[in-house]
Amino acid sequence: MPAIQPERLLADLRHLRSIGAQGRGVVRPAFSAKDMEARRWLKERFEVAGLDATIDGVGNVLGRSRNAGRALLVGSHSDTQPTGGWLDGALGVIYALEVARALAADAATAGLPVDIVSLQDEESRFVGCLGSRSLIGGLTAEMEQGALDKDGVRMEDALRAAGLAGVPRLRISRERYAGFVEAHIEQGPTLEDTGKRIGVVTDIVGLRGIRFEFRGQQNHAGTTMMSRRRDASGALYELAHRINSEFPKVAGERTVWTMGRLKVEPNATSIVPGYADLDLQFRDASEAPLDAFEAIVERIVTEMNARGGVAITAAPARAPIRPTRMDDGLRAHVERAAERHAPGQWMRLPSGAFHDAGIISAMLPAAMLFIPSIGGISHDFAEDSRDDDIVLGCQVLADAVASGVAAANGRD
Amino acid sequence: MPAIQPERLLADLRHLRSIGAQGRGVVRPAFSAKDMEARRWLKERFEVAGLDATIDGVGNVLGRSRNAGRALLVGSHSDTQPTGGWLDGALGVIYALEVARALAADAATAGLPVDIVSLQDEESRFVGCLGSRSLIGGLTAEMEQGALDKDGVRMEDALRAAGLAGVPRLRISRERYAGFVEAHIEQGPTLEDTGKRIGVVTDIVGLRGIRFEFRGQQNHAGTTMMSRRRDASGALYELAHRINSEFPKVAGERTVWTMGRLKVEPNATSIVPGYADLDLQFRDASEAPLDAFEAIVERIVTEMNARGGVAITAAPARAPIRPTRMDDGLRAHVERAAERHAPGQWMRLPSGAFHDAGIISAMLPAAMLFIPSIGGISHDFAEDSRDDDIVLGCQVLADAVASGVAAANGRD
Repeated sequence: MPAIQPERLLADLRHLRSIGAQGRGVVRPAFSAKDMEARRWLKERFEVAGLDATIDGVGNVLGRSRNAGRALLVGSHSDTQPTGGWLDGALGVIYALEVARALAADAATAGLPVDIVSLQDEESRFVGCLGSRSLIGGLTAEMEQGALDKDGVRMEDALRAAGLAGVPRLRISRERYAGFVEAHIEQGPTLEDTGKRIGVVTDIVGLRGIRFEFRGQQNHAGTTMMSRRRDASGALYELAHRINSEFPKVAGERTVWTMGRLKVEPNATSIVPGYADLDLQFRDASEAPLDAFEAIVERIVTEMNARGGVAITAAPARAPIRPTRMDDGLRAHVERAAERHAPGQWMRLPSGAFHDAGIISAMLPAAMLFIPSIGGISHDFAEDSRDDDIVLGCQVLADAVASGVAAANGRD
Repeated sequence: MPAIQPERLLADLRHLRSIGAQGRGVVRPAFSAKDMEARRWLKERFEVAGLDATIDGVGNVLGRSRNAGRALLVGSHSDTQPTGGWLDGALGVIYALEVARALAADAATAGLPVDIVSLQDEESRFVGCLGSRSLIGGLTAEMEQGALDKDGVRMEDALRAAGLAGVPRLRISRERYAGFVEAHIEQGPTLEDTGKRIGVVTDIVGLRGIRFEFRGQQNHAGTTMMSRRRDASGALYELAHRINSEFPKVAGERTVWTMGRLKVEPNATSIVPGYADLDLQFRDASEAPLDAFEAIVERIVTEMNARGGVAITAAPARAPIRPTRMDDGLRAHVERAAERHAPGQWMRLPSGAFHDAGIISAMLPAAMLFIPSIGGISHDFAEDSRDDDIVLGCQVLADAVASGVAAANGRD
């Protein structure tokens, strides 16, 4: 049974944290100088671990095992949010490195093929999950051409500045890989709340978005009588409040919805707004509540539009993400490893956040494990996990990968 | 009966429009170079009309009659909104000039004391109704010291740049003045909708404001279950919709309320907002519905806070403006003049917008007349009125001022 080295694991995690560190957080968005510095350092560490390492044309760092057979691919992403936490993504990359080292150091597993990867731009500076999309051949020319970051920088220019123009892009295949395993912090409070130390992901939830637009008439707030108003803000408040009142009737236990971005024009105290828009996002591990939400939205919008006054439109805000089921076989390896190292202290749960495993699962069997996030906090400088949870998660992953890749090669 | 000269009136209005013209609109905010150019031109025109003219230390242009007796003060303001219409304020100033000229040209009225004025900063670049506040002695050191425009310019610096530092400030007194009369565009659609050409203002409505703040907890929109959320935006939507549902039950026919400015933080599609704020403004000519609104707000906020979750605070957003009754005696002069020149085509109505007459009424009897705004539009480049309505309004004002000042001097 491969044994990870806790001090080596934590030292590498802390070194990666130092690249782009700001206070307790990390600022290392995809293709930034710090991101590329981190990727070059990872490539060296992968080579020191005995892997053939490459940075491909979108910035993915792939470490390939020289062992024969069907491999497991293990990893996550090392890019961060604009003001990110130190573990999100980075944890799963350093876990993969430590797992590769631990398997190589154990005679029983040294011959097993395990490749490791740091994927690029999971955090959507340009294209969410850019690296995993590129690996499975799902990155289209359209996605790339229009891609701008929030400051208006073109992806093409960021690639050139990072030294990646013309560098070949890697693809993965079902021939080489038996599956993909990703470890990640939970980014939510469920493990902490229930006193569990390992989460085994059953599904990555689906996500849909609707952009509402409200078109009324801008007017003076003193001289325009209520009966004449076509107040875009009033329609927004009503629609949003009715959604919040009606969705709970059809929601599942873990269905979530959010209306956290809106705009009201001209957004002045003394002016009746003539225009507003609002984003609604909703997620669940099954399609049924998402379909039910869309039906409710359609009914409310139709009813409000029938009254006249403000004209409301509702359009899909983005390509929907379908719920993704993790692979039962690969998940069983993770569960057995969790029960071995954390008996009674692990649980199954869906992932409310999206991950590269959701992209790669379109091509390969995929599995994920979570470790607890302190206070459920992520995407924030305050993001953290306990050292003993970090160590435990890596040991569970090492065992799960060892048994998974052995099984894939008929050696279990 | 004094007769105004329509061509002279329209020519002066158009000349004033040319100072700071942008397309169909005018950009002449208080103390800007164009505003001061307009004020110097007005001073000249006041002098040509036989008045002793002064620009005082806050930019008011006062033209004093040399006739003895108790005077009427007539005028409005020539500063504009940042992107203003051509008539708002300017109409009442040029009306005053034309009325002074018409009275001077008629033997029966040439000896009557009528002073005219262009007030400063009615449109709140620094202090709303600065000029009229200063004239009645209501401008405090506190108002001036903290005054910044929306670009952060200090009022003190703007005064200096306009050449007004150290220039004496005028005061008006009850000894000299029997009253103040202001003409203005309606800035609303009531006259146009009812086919009337003159509005006689009964009241200037009162205005109160409440700033709501919502403090919750910012979270990830995928991993934070609904039961754990403290979503500032959801509380905002509920409160705003309940206000819009409950206010109509206690509102008067012309009570208005508006929630046109809000902020949600961080205003991102995938983040549960941790903070929001919202402005509520409400106006009526009587205090009763305003009091009833405050009671409803207090009840809803108390009820929502009792639930826990998001903490809501409600605080007065600004000093309230009390409803102001126009003077019955002075109003009767306006009504008689309206009936003479527009029989059956005038009406009484409250002013939904605030005006300098609301400030000056604290010291002097005040009256206002309105002419129709095309489409009810104001504070917009598209603001306009028909030439024949402009001419009619000025003739009504001239008659009203002539009879009003005659009565004040025992000559009616």
